[in-house]
Parts: sequence; structure tokens; C-alpha cells
Amino acid sequence: MDKIHIGLIGFGTVGTGVVRVLKENAQVIKDRLGKEVVLKKIADRDIERDRGVEVSKDALTTDVDSVINDPEIKIVVELIGGTGAAREIILRALKNGRHVVTANKALLSTHGAEIFSAAEKNGVNIGFEASVGGGIPIIKALREGLSANRIESIYGIINGTANYILSKMTNEGGKFETVLREAQKKGYAEADPTYDVEGIDTSHKLAILINLAFGTHVPLGDIYTEGIGRVTELDVKFAREFGYKIKLLAIAKAEDGVIEARVHPTMIPLGHPLSAVDGVYNAIHINGNAVGSVMFYGKGAGMMPTASAVAADIIDICRDMSGGLSVKDGWRGPRMTPLGYAEGAERALSIKKIDDLDVPYYIRFSAIDRPGVLSRISGVLGAHDISISSVMQKGRKRGGTVPLVIITHNAFEREFRKALDEIEKLDVIAGKTMCIRIEESNGGTQ
Amino acid sequence: MDKIHIGLIGFGTVGTGVVRVLKENAQVIKDRLGKEVVLKKIADRDIERDRGVEVSKDALTTDVDSVINDPEIKIVVELIGGTGAAREIILRALKNGRHVVTANKALLSTHGAEIFSAAEKNGVNIGFEASVGGGIPIIKALREGLSANRIESIYGIINGTANYILSKMTNEGGKFETVLREAQKKGYAEADPTYDVEGIDTSHKLAILINLAFGTHVPLGDIYTEGIGRVTELDVKFAREFGYKIKLLAIAKAEDGVIEARVHPTMIPLGHPLSAVDGVYNAIHINGNAVGSVMFYGKGAGMMPTASAVAADIIDICRDMSGGLSVKDGWRGPRMTPLGYAEGAERALSIKKIDDLDVPYYIRFSAIDRPGVLSRISGVLGAHDISISSVMQKGRKRGGTVPLVIITHNAFEREFRKALDEIEKLDVIAGKTMCIRIEESNGGTQ
Repeated sequence: MDKIHIGLIGFGTVGTGVVRVLKENAQVIKDRLGKEVVLKKIADRDIERDRGVEVSKDALTTDVDSVINDPEIKIVVELIGGTGAAREIILRALKNGRHVVTANKALLSTHGAEIFSAAEKNGVNIGFEASVGGGIPIIKALREGLSANRIESIYGIINGTANYILSKMTNEGGKFETVLREAQKKGYAEADPTYDVEGIDTSHKLAILINLAFGTHVPLGDIYTEGIGRVTELDVKFAREFGYKIKLLAIAKAEDGVIEARVHPTMIPLGHPLSAVDGVYNAIHINGNAVGSVMFYGKGAGMMPTASAVAADIIDICRDMSGGLSVKDGWRGPRMTPLGYAEGAERALSIKKIDDLDVPYYIRFSAIDRPGVLSRISGVLGAHDISISSVMQKGRKRGGTVPLVIITHNAFEREFRKALDEIEKLDVIAGKTMCIRIEESNGGTQ
Repeated sequence: MDKIHIGLIGFGTVGTGVVRVLKENAQVIKDRLGKEVVLKKIADRDIERDRGVEVSKDALTTDVDSVINDPEIKIVVELIGGTGAAREIILRALKNGRHVVTANKALLSTHGAEIFSAAEKNGVNIGFEASVGGGIPIIKALREGLSANRIESIYGIINGTANYILSKMTNEGGKFETVLREAQKKGYAEADPTYDVEGIDTSHKLAILINLAFGTHVPLGDIYTEGIGRVTELDVKFAREFGYKIKLLAIAKAEDGVIEARVHPTMIPLGHPLSAVDGVYNAIHINGNAVGSVMFYGKGAGMMPTASAVAADIIDICRDMSGGLSVKDGWRGPRMTPLGYAEGAERALSIKKIDDLDVPYYIRFSAIDRPGVLSRISGVLGAHDISISSVMQKGRKRGGTVPLVIITHNAFEREFRKALDEIEKLDVIAGKTMCIRIEESNGGTQ
């Protein structure tokens, strides 16, 4: 039986998962591929540590070049992460005519254009299924399964840590800080949780999804990004009373050649399929103009789910490399570009400024409990053309501070910000105001 | 720009959808493919009726052969359905070296082996994404996205009509017959609803999913199939009280080379992601040994969602036909077999007999309300080694008939049937007993 040799660079958690998948599922991979995938070399700085998987001593090396330059190795799997060495390794591997598989969302969201074009120029494949949604085959779905659709919107819960924290706050209560500490203890959050809770990781993944859905590169700086650190127990409770759940969503919409791209805590209706996605699970909800609403759900991180996606990319490339079942003349170039757009068809679309956003808002004021407060607040909102959908004030504390919650109809962010600045200067406001954007779509359920 | 010519056979609802998608999304398809897809011919018995889409008169024909034999037409799309003419047309097209795209689940579940091997023998592709789950790219997910996994289980809500009826009964109440009539009025159920409500359509689709997941053909007769016609309002209500929802599930599991394959009304925990899938929506929940739980959700039928899948197959084949981006020497054979298993790797696995099934049951007896009833029933169950997990009797009607509900622990179907026969002969049982199998898995949530 034919063998295809691959090399792995980065023997961390996901790397270990890849070794395990290739070993534990060797039979099913052989059955599907008709070829054997041989992991010939593994490069890592640390080749001593026991990862709990059996690896031949000879395969291990600290020398990345010995992997990239091995003429027998056709596919290089990059799993060291980051945007420094990884970028350089991938570019060199591509230049060497190696196919590359990577899970590196930070790299692809910042240097995607460079890397994808290097793959095209060298006539090789680059697989990056594991970069978004862990084991969920969302890259393939956007690039192939939904390829006949004009994509209208994407809503993603694509960071397991943030979703774990918000789910916990929603289902069991607790302050953000407390739940975060718990998540850290359980290994669901990093010691430095910034990337996850500030929405940065989510924005990286959103950039990749936008690449695929709309055939355009979006500079990370153009994705409005806001984390979940300011969401309180109170907000979670109010959300439920108004029929919403709070999720950290990655949102992208296309209309008239303009792309909305944003990451922030969002209130979505309890009936939306995304509202039921709890814990470390990820889900991506897509609207296509033909398919309607579809959703993809699964584990967005972790050793084995991520390895499942990496291994699927390896098999996919091997299938391309097989050169067809009836002809045996080797490789003759990828069947499509990395993003699934024809050469020249990728476009530079403009990204909507967050100021131009037009959505309903949840606003929780810390207001002094005295007559006339609502009239003054709603007066300012009205002056900025913002109308109120509902109001809730729970509890009474004459002369003290109480939460006053307002849900607005659609309002322009620019006006909304101005109104908020004015309201916060009123003497009836005693503390910081919390705002959460609302998405009213029910996700196609009915 | 290159053009790829295709022919359509069957200008019904889905055929019309395909014409619309190719027309309305021509630009995005061109962008993704770098080629133009030209619908050169459309064959149907009726070429007069207005389908609400503009089609050139010259393209329409009643002559199927003129499509299959047109040397310019590379892809034949079969959308006439059924297992008679469709089979013959597909086999001839394949023999002619045409790629084929079909949505025909009835055909593939009965003659799949013949058709797939004809495609292989003739070195062409056959696309059948639209045969299961409408617009949900589930075929691609199983064949490619999850290809590195040993699939452990599949749970599918894959018939929109049945799910619409059960959802309606669950959420709004109503008898099966009443809700079915309503669904018929709304166009969600056929005038003859047998295929949908009796689980036949679901078993067809399950056979295809089993093909892909386990690389084995399962005779339809080996799939235990039971419809939803006997589910009552009462069962739906009791289900909820015990923390379940009733869904018509397609279930497949693989263990030690034995496949469980069954279609029946099933109680699943309210926390299972499938339990939230309501109305005409479909969802397929898969457990892979690496990826864990994943779920795919979307519209399982309808003109445009199904056309989305057909068009995706067309694009996929065109990408294969493009012969790679860097070489222009035409077609050289599919990159994989139709089911994604290497030649010779498909296996004949044995299907578990329903008698050997080992699951918990919900049983609703129509019992005479008098002391000692439970003792007699549980005595018979116990004699068959079936233990009780919980019991509920609502309402009292001394000497009259009341529903007595028992949830059992795992029990073998064979013993369960014997016990039931004995119990039904007891003089404390006054009517027909209803049984629904339970799946306890929560689908990997928490």
C-alpha cells in the first residue's frame, strides 16, 4: 500500500492529539484513503517530555529544517502557534513545495493574505480547518458545502472559554471574576485569559470566517472587539427576563458590498438555536441566500477535537495528492485556492464602522430612585431619535441607586453613544452604565 | 472564461430551485469556481408549465437522451426521483462518462451499491449531498470533514414532516391526526403522508448515512422502522414530565463491528441539542471518537435548501474537473470514491437484530385503577429481568381506566416484548399499551 509521509512541527497538546488520532484511527484512515499516513518526523524544542503517546525516538528532532527539507515529507503540519516562527516555517515549507496544515488562527488572521498567496504561487494546498471551531468542519462547509450560496450572515460562538463563563453565570449565577477563577482551576481558561475573555481570539477566527464567506481580507483592526469582562450577574438575569441570553458572538453580515464585522457580548432571543449552546461548546450559525439557516455545533477546542480537524485536512490533501483514482501520475496542483475563490475573484470590501451600526440596545443605568428619572433619560434618548421598546425597574430604594433597564428599538451607534454621554452627566445617574447590543433574529426557527 | 455545461433531468420543485440558484447566484459561483456553469438542457415530460423562472425555450426538451448523450454536457443532474426511470438514467449517464448529481435517497438507499460502483468503474463522480438533510452539508461532513474519526453514533432528525408534527404536538398540543391534517393544508405533509410519518423516508436517509459513516451497505429491510402515528398527546406530555422530548430519530451505532440501525419515535433528554430542533428543521448529531459530539442543523427539505446542496455538488465536481489550478490537462478521475472509502475497503458489517436491542423503555399502560395493579405489572417485568426506574400514575378513576406510565432501566427488546405480551393478558389492563424507546445520552452537552 502507498504511504504518504508527513512531518509535525510543534509537539504540544494539539500535536499530541494528532499523533494519537493518526495512531488510534490508523485503520479507518487507511480504509478511507487507501494509503497509509506515516508521521515521519516530529520537531519540537522539547523532545524529552513524556506526552503519553508512543513515538519512535528516531522521529523526534529539535531541528525544524530537517522536517521542512526532508524530500519524502509531503505535508508539514505546523502546530507551534503564534505569528513569529510559525509564519516563517510555513512560508518556507510552502516555498519548498510542501503542503501545509495549520491550526494557527492568530497567524492566518494577520498574515493570511501572504500565506494563502504563497500556497497558490507554489501550487500546494494549505489546510486550516482546525483554526476555527476546533473539530467542527466549518471551513469546509463555507468553502465547499455552502459554495452555491451568497452568505448573508454569520453568528458564531467560537470561543469555548468565554462561552463557558457566560453559560455558568447564566445557569448557576456568580460574578464574572469568580466564574473565571473557577474556569482557570478547571483548565477551561488560561492563566492569562485576555485573549479569550477580551474577544481577541474570537476576532481572529471571525477574520478567517469572513475570508471564506465573502472572499475578502479584513484587517483585524477593522473588527470591532469588546470582551465579556463587564457583564454582570444582573445583566444575565435581566436578559432572561426580556427573553434573551447573553453570548459572546462573532458577527459578520454582508449587505450591498459592505461587511459588518464585530465581536461583543450580545443578547440573542432564547429561541435562537445559538442560545442553547452552552459550556465549552462552539457553534456557527450561517444564513445563506439559498440554504437559509444552518448551524454547526461541536467542541471548539481541546486536544482530540482539534486533532480531528488537523487529520481531516491531512486526509483531504492526501486525496488531492492521490492524483485521482484512475490515474497515477502524481500531484498536479490544488483543486481550488485556499479560500475557495478563483484567482482574482477575491475582493476588497469595505467594513462598516461601528459608529454606523444600527441595532437595538439593552442599557442598564445605575439611577437614583426618584420621580422623573425615566422622563429625563427618555428625553435625551428621544432627542437623539432613539425610541424605547421596554423599560424595567426592579426593586425600590427611595433616593438610593437602583438598576433601571431600557431596551431600545434600532438606533445608530453614533447617536446612541452621544445620548449615553449626555445621560451619564445627568445628576440622576449614579454609576457606570452597561450597554449590550441585541440581535433580534431568531435564527430561522419559527 | 471557461464554461462547464450541465444538463438537468426533472424540472419539478427542486429542479426549479437549481435553475434559480444557478441564475441568482451566478456571480458568486463564478467567483468561487473561476468558471461559468451553463445549464444547457433541461428535460422534463412537461416543458410547458410556467415554473416562475426564466428558461430559454431551446434548453427545454422532453428527450432525456438528448441530455445524456450531449457531448458538451459533463454533469447530469437527476431530479426526477423514484427508483425506476431515475436508476436507468443515472446508470446510462455514468456509463457515458458523465458526472451525476442526484437528490434521490429512495434510489441510493436501495440501489446505491450498483450506482456507486458504476461511478467508480467509469471514473466519474456522483454527488448526492441533497439526498440527506436538504441543504445541510452532512454528506461532505461524514465523507471528508470527519474522515479521521471512527464514527460511534449518529442520531438524526431527518424528516421535516414528522418533526413538524411532533413539534406541534409538543409545543401546542393536538392529536396526531389533527396536526397531520394541518400540516397537509400548509404543504408540510403530502396528501399521502405514509413515507414521512411511517419513517420510511427517514430509513432511506439513514441507510445512506450508514454507508458513509461505516463504509457498509445496509439492506433497507434490516433497518427497524416504526412511524409516529401511534404517538399521542398524552405521551408527549408524560415525556416532558420525565424530562424528555419525543422525536422521530434515525439511530445508527457501531460497536465491535456490529451496526445498530433503527428508526422510531424516541424519547431524548430535554438537554440534548436535538431536543431543541423544532418544526421542519433537520439536524444530525454525530459522535466521533476524536471529535466528540458534533451537530449539523438546517432545513432538511424545500426548493432552495435542497437546490443549495445540488449546486454545491455541481461546484465540487467542477473543481475536480478543473484539473487543478496549475495544470490544464482536463479530467483524470475522482479524488475519492463516492462514499469516501478506498476501493476494497467497504465492508459487510452485520446489523443488530431489533430483538437484541438493549435500551430503557417508556411504557404507558391503560390500566384499571385498583389496588395491586402495579405489583402485578412489575412482577411480570421483574420475571423478565426488567427493572423499573420510575412510575407515574396521574389522576384517579376507581375501577376505571387510567394511564399508568413506567420507565424501565435498560432491557433487552426480546424479553421486553415477552413481558409486554404477558402483561397485556392481565385483567388489569384495559387497552392498548404504548411503548417508546429512550436514548439517555445528553449529546455531550454540559
